[in-house]
Amino acid sequence: MLDHAVAEDLLPLSTEAAGVYLFGENFEEIIGLLRRGITAMAAAEPFRRLTIPPVISRRTIERAGYVGSFPQLLGTVHSYPGDGRSWGKLSPLVESGGDWYRDHTISDVVLLPAACYPVYPTLEGRELAGPARFHVDATCFRQEASSETGRLRSFRMVELVTAGTPDHCASWRERWLARVGEWLSAAGLSVSVEVADDPFFGPGRKLFQEAQRLQELKFELRVAVSGDTVQAIASANYHKEHFGEVFEFTAGGEVGHTACTAFGLERIALALINAHGPAVRDWPAEVVAVLGGTGA
Amino acid sequence: MLDHAVAEDLLPLSTEAAGVYLFGENFEEIIGLLRRGITAMAAAEPFRRLTIPPVISRRTIERAGYVGSFPQLLGTVHSYPGDGRSWGKLSPLVESGGDWYRDHTISDVVLLPAACYPVYPTLEGRELAGPARFHVDATCFRQEASSETGRLRSFRMVELVTAGTPDHCASWRERWLARVGEWLSAAGLSVSVEVADDPFFGPGRKLFQEAQRLQELKFELRVAVSGDTVQAIASANYHKEHFGEVFEFTAGGEVGHTACTAFGLERIALALINAHGPAVRDWPAEVVAVLGGTGA
Repeated sequence: MLDHAVAEDLLPLSTEAAGVYLFGENFEEIIGLLRRGITAMAAAEPFRRLTIPPVISRRTIERAGYVGSFPQLLGTVHSYPGDGRSWGKLSPLVESGGDWYRDHTISDVVLLPAACYPVYPTLEGRELAGPARFHVDATCFRQEASSETGRLRSFRMVELVTAGTPDHCASWRERWLARVGEWLSAAGLSVSVEVADDPFFGPGRKLFQEAQRLQELKFELRVAVSGDTVQAIASANYHKEHFGEVFEFTAGGEVGHTACTAFGLERIALALINAHGPAVRDWPAEVVAVLGGTGA
Repeated sequence: MLDHAVAEDLLPLSTEAAGVYLFGENFEEIIGLLRRGITAMAAAEPFRRLTIPPVISRRTIERAGYVGSFPQLLGTVHSYPGDGRSWGKLSPLVESGGDWYRDHTISDVVLLPAACYPVYPTLEGRELAGPARFHVDATCFRQEASSETGRLRSFRMVELVTAGTPDHCASWRERWLARVGEWLSAAGLSVSVEVADDPFFGPGRKLFQEAQRLQELKFELRVAVSGDTVQAIASANYHKEHFGEVFEFTAGGEVGHTACTAFGLERIALALINAHGPAVRDWPAEVVAVLGGTGA
């Protein structure tokens, strides 16, 4: 990375925690462009917009199946349950570098692993009169082990989500996969679209991944984010009846299906910086226009 | 709260976790207005803008003294350190409602308790040639016990922060305390400015609070956020040499001082809703103009 780019806050700033960055104005200008572009693409459908906090009910995440599938990525939130008097015995450990957190207990919230999870409980027990659509924006957390460029632990994700019949969800996902690929390509990125799987964990891992691939439930849009490092910067997913069964919503009298398309904002920004340089002011005007939804 | 306001997403939506809300478009319109207004007020000084993630290095928070002072509010982030094979023994506990998290260990990050903490390490070891200024925006978390209106656990905070000499910091804090009070009053809120203290925890609590009040280090701007419930919606704070000592930065050859003014975005929004009603479209035009920084 270029020294002047670091000096001018063009690139994310490292912190004492790996994979956790601060973002300056230029980087946020890119994030803002992406948000406007996604909003412009979404204008053709009546999405309900929701801003989602970075923590979520632990029970929601347990019910949604995340703990069973991706426990290695989940950050649980713990806190001190005692009173001030009992803290008096632990407080000297802060200064001495001891385990002041040894009496901490798990709380009722966890870090949000993907932006869409909070929307499914809003449909709980409902029969959907027509397709439901959500446009959500959140900062997510995944306890990633790698320190590869773009593999942030704290990162922002915009998702477009729909719930409805199987036919609706399947064709909606196909349409958005194409639409997002066109948008990223028009912004000068070299995109490959690939059938993908999720990082399931534990004994059933290979079986789940194989089933997911066979059914083509997940497509990733992959782009170089730095040199030869290629990562998924967006994805389009069909969850079938998974969330409908858990949260008991229906469409046309049958278990509701869901699908989503997800945008990894920092990764898209890094891919754009990799392709066009760190400063937005130096990018081709048509790239800026396409990204922000004001171009062709 | 009015039924139509809930139906139209005018108000925050509850989730399965107390004090954690989803926010619809009208509420975000208020948040956006506030952000623009703060940016307009800040235009007279050269602030460095940084977007801050909702997690922060645990070591930074330990060094900054937060654990020693407010352990009861801190959310620590824990994760599963084992491999897929060992998870096989825990995974049945997810379905059965057991303690699948029993082998979780504390990680190197905690939830961010206030927006300004990540800026102090960026000054580490430096002699400041002149005042440093930061404009930061973050989602914070505090493990609050209460479910009183406005006492959110996950909430957004904008902070203006400065570091420099004692004289600079003291007069800067005084100026911003007055400026923010004028802004909120001009927006039709009935503001009381009061010397305040922080919720220190443990045996030394009363002593710390008394010292803080005697030195008038913290002022809160208090407004009714719902009926008779009055809360601090903004504050102006002088930390003296606290962060300069910890992070070893200097100004004029002496230990650097710091000050900040903090805006609780959801609380200001709730106070405005309490004063003017839930829908921005029904607010007086001059209130909207003042808030967004385009009015008198």
